[in-house]
Amino acid sequence: MSNLLIQGATVLTMEEHDAVFKDGEIAVAGDKIISAGPRGSVPGEFKADRVLDGSGMVVMPGFVNCHTHAAMTLLRSYADDMPLMQWLNEKIWPLEAKMRPEDFHWGTMLCCLEMIKSGTTTFADMYFEMDLVALAVEMSGLRACLSRGMIGVAANAKTAVDESIKLVEEWQGKAGGRITTMFGPHAPYTCPPEYLKKVVKLAADHNVGIHIHVAETKDEIDQIKGNYGLTPVQYLDENGVFDVPVLAAHCVHLNKDDIAILKQKNVRVAHCPESNMKLASGISPVIELLDAGVVVGLGTDSAASNNNLDMMEETRSAALLQKVATGDPMALPSFAALRMATTDGARALGLEDVGLIKPGMKADLILVDFRRPHLYPRHDLYAHVVYAAQSSDIDTVIINGKIVMEGRRVLTMDEKEVMTQAQKCADRLVGEE
Amino acid sequence: MSNLLIQGATVLTMEEHDAVFKDGEIAVAGDKIISAGPRGSVPGEFKADRVLDGSGMVVMPGFVNCHTHAAMTLLRSYADDMPLMQWLNEKIWPLEAKMRPEDFHWGTMLCCLEMIKSGTTTFADMYFEMDLVALAVEMSGLRACLSRGMIGVAANAKTAVDESIKLVEEWQGKAGGRITTMFGPHAPYTCPPEYLKKVVKLAADHNVGIHIHVAETKDEIDQIKGNYGLTPVQYLDENGVFDVPVLAAHCVHLNKDDIAILKQKNVRVAHCPESNMKLASGISPVIELLDAGVVVGLGTDSAASNNNLDMMEETRSAALLQKVATGDPMALPSFAALRMATTDGARALGLEDVGLIKPGMKADLILVDFRRPHLYPRHDLYAHVVYAAQSSDIDTVIINGKIVMEGRRVLTMDEKEVMTQAQKCADRLVGEE
Ligand SMILES: [Zn+2]
Ligand SMILES: [Zn+2]
Repeated sequence: MSNLLIQGATVLTMEEHDAVFKDGEIAVAGDKIISAGPRGSVPGEFKADRVLDGSGMVVMPGFVNCHTHAAMTLLRSYADDMPLMQWLNEKIWPLEAKMRPEDFHWGTMLCCLEMIKSGTTTFADMYFEMDLVALAVEMSGLRACLSRGMIGVAANAKTAVDESIKLVEEWQGKAGGRITTMFGPHAPYTCPPEYLKKVVKLAADHNVGIHIHVAETKDEIDQIKGNYGLTPVQYLDENGVFDVPVLAAHCVHLNKDDIAILKQKNVRVAHCPESNMKLASGISPVIELLDAGVVVGLGTDSAASNNNLDMMEETRSAALLQKVATGDPMALPSFAALRMATTDGARALGLEDVGLIKPGMKADLILVDFRRPHLYPRHDLYAHVVYAAQSSDIDTVIINGKIVMEGRRVLTMDEKEVMTQAQKCADRLVGEE
Repeated sequence: MSNLLIQGATVLTMEEHDAVFKDGEIAVAGDKIISAGPRGSVPGEFKADRVLDGSGMVVMPGFVNCHTHAAMTLLRSYADDMPLMQWLNEKIWPLEAKMRPEDFHWGTMLCCLEMIKSGTTTFADMYFEMDLVALAVEMSGLRACLSRGMIGVAANAKTAVDESIKLVEEWQGKAGGRITTMFGPHAPYTCPPEYLKKVVKLAADHNVGIHIHVAETKDEIDQIKGNYGLTPVQYLDENGVFDVPVLAAHCVHLNKDDIAILKQKNVRVAHCPESNMKLASGISPVIELLDAGVVVGLGTDSAASNNNLDMMEETRSAALLQKVATGDPMALPSFAALRMATTDGARALGLEDVGLIKPGMKADLILVDFRRPHLYPRHDLYAHVVYAAQSSDIDTVIINGKIVMEGRRVLTMDEKEVMTQAQKCADRLVGEE
């Protein structure tokens, strides 16, 4: 437990558009923000163990990546520009079948390293070998909401349930509270009704939520309609899935009734614009979701389909895509897009004390260095962050009150070792050695 | 004139997909590439004055930004998330009217600095006070194709013609051949037939091309249709514009006949996906243009509507946008997108000896440092550059055989001075001082 004082930066609290402090001051005690305001606003009794000079920088809440598959970072650029099912059948699944424990470890470590360097402080993961993922999260210093992917129609459907229970029981609230858990039934088209019902009961019994892919492709809509006469959203609703807190990834193909159900059941959406664009899945009706009052966060999806985990870039893509999709240049303005990438992402993960700069919130902060040519001149800072900045402008990352990156050097991991080991694993996987 | 040897980098020549040299070697004499191949391929008689170690890097042709308005970088993030005409009428035009010579100078210098730092080696500009722009280009070391924007319906229509002639006569081929020029009639809706005809004759007489905005918005289509019963492309064709080499920016709203005309008249397109997204102008039918055999390059448009000049990001957006727009994940694969951003961009500007790494071409090269977490592991290098990299990964930039950036330090400009002066100009312009 140490006390941290950040001075001189411009503070974007993200509470509301005008809640900005030029030459601001933020006091952090342990894992929490205890004050945020203009210079001189820190309580007199506060003793800082460390003072960070934020001159020339903007400090804002860290990014919350609401949907990814961390270890798949090992498959980055392994297969691109292909139709989804061919990509999965011929490329991704055969390689995943060969993955060993070290692959999960180094794949996740690489993912965590990249996320820290690009200002993500919290992420939601769905994958396998979650003990290894949880260990990597613990070491990296990140905050994460972990779920074991469960495919109800697969041979290992029962094992997946057992491992999910183990994940939730062993890791919920661990790593100084940085790790939370969910159950992760993969998708409507891979989970039959009885399986879903079992998972819902488990989630309710363990008092955790559910992370699931929903309405990602047109094919999924057709398949669920064909099998059950329902939309994917209706299908999940009918099987009680929305009776527990749900994080629904993608939600590309929705009708008005679907959106009404999502709102009514307080389902939170993880919007993944770049993955949806790259796989040509479609464009999520984000503006309609927001107008209906649905909580929408942002996700990168895995690096195998994006091909990076850069939330600053994802935020820009989200804003630009909604404008051109709706024909309205005012759609998803910069502040709203940035809320989605931070505050609302945290809400989507059920983290009520993450994603804002105000007293009582977890100290998950990033300092963006604005002394770059592409961030001059300084007119609108939100527009700068969303439309002009790049994640390499992020100088310092603080998670749970701890500095995990400073001057772009990650303090919790050996960067070279992670890159070297990840390359080794990838080389072995694709049989290049 | 000095000789440069680049060793150890992986060379993406961009000639064709498999024309890649791992552990390659590139020899540069004066402003030209004299050899490119695997290590040991450089002619024995070649004596290098300087050897660059490219270990861990990828070397490729520099980016060609086919459409921008450099000095508008001063208006970055000044006004966003607004409808186009309101943005122009209430924000951009009033501020432009207040711009003084020092604003054009520092705005363009800031633009050049940002472009060099993000790997652009050539750009096409259309703006005013082009003497000042040309001087900034000369100082920065960039290659540029300059045009004086001409609005035929404006009070200064005649002045614009005179200044355009002056630009072409004084600057064509200057700055060691780095500067070329075009005439820049602004757009179909701002240039009446007689004005266009006069400009075409001037371009033909001076043996240079024309840079013009074409079919950017639905409103433009309606207006030209209303006035002349023609599409913008037909309107330009009827007035002889396509009888000289034309660089047509945007080309968002085209029908099949338009595309046939563009192909037949060898009109080159500057596709600006992020500007078109942000202003909600629409999505250019790039795949149809490419299928028809039209040369398509990429442009950022100005930093006032993008809000950066980052061609790596623009390339990614172009690829992702075409996939989701066509519903085909195979549309505009990484190699094709990268060709558009380099080789085809140079062709679009009429620069036949720019945009490829092969003997005889101008030495416009960038070295991308791949020793970054988000560029591991190494599977497909094209996919890495287009889908995963960021422009801050660019370590070294060479233009016309001269190193203009090394280790991310720009050698031709005083970075701090440029940022400071640009901020001063912007502050004065918006009346904050
Ligand atoms: Zn997913
Ligand atoms: Zn333009």
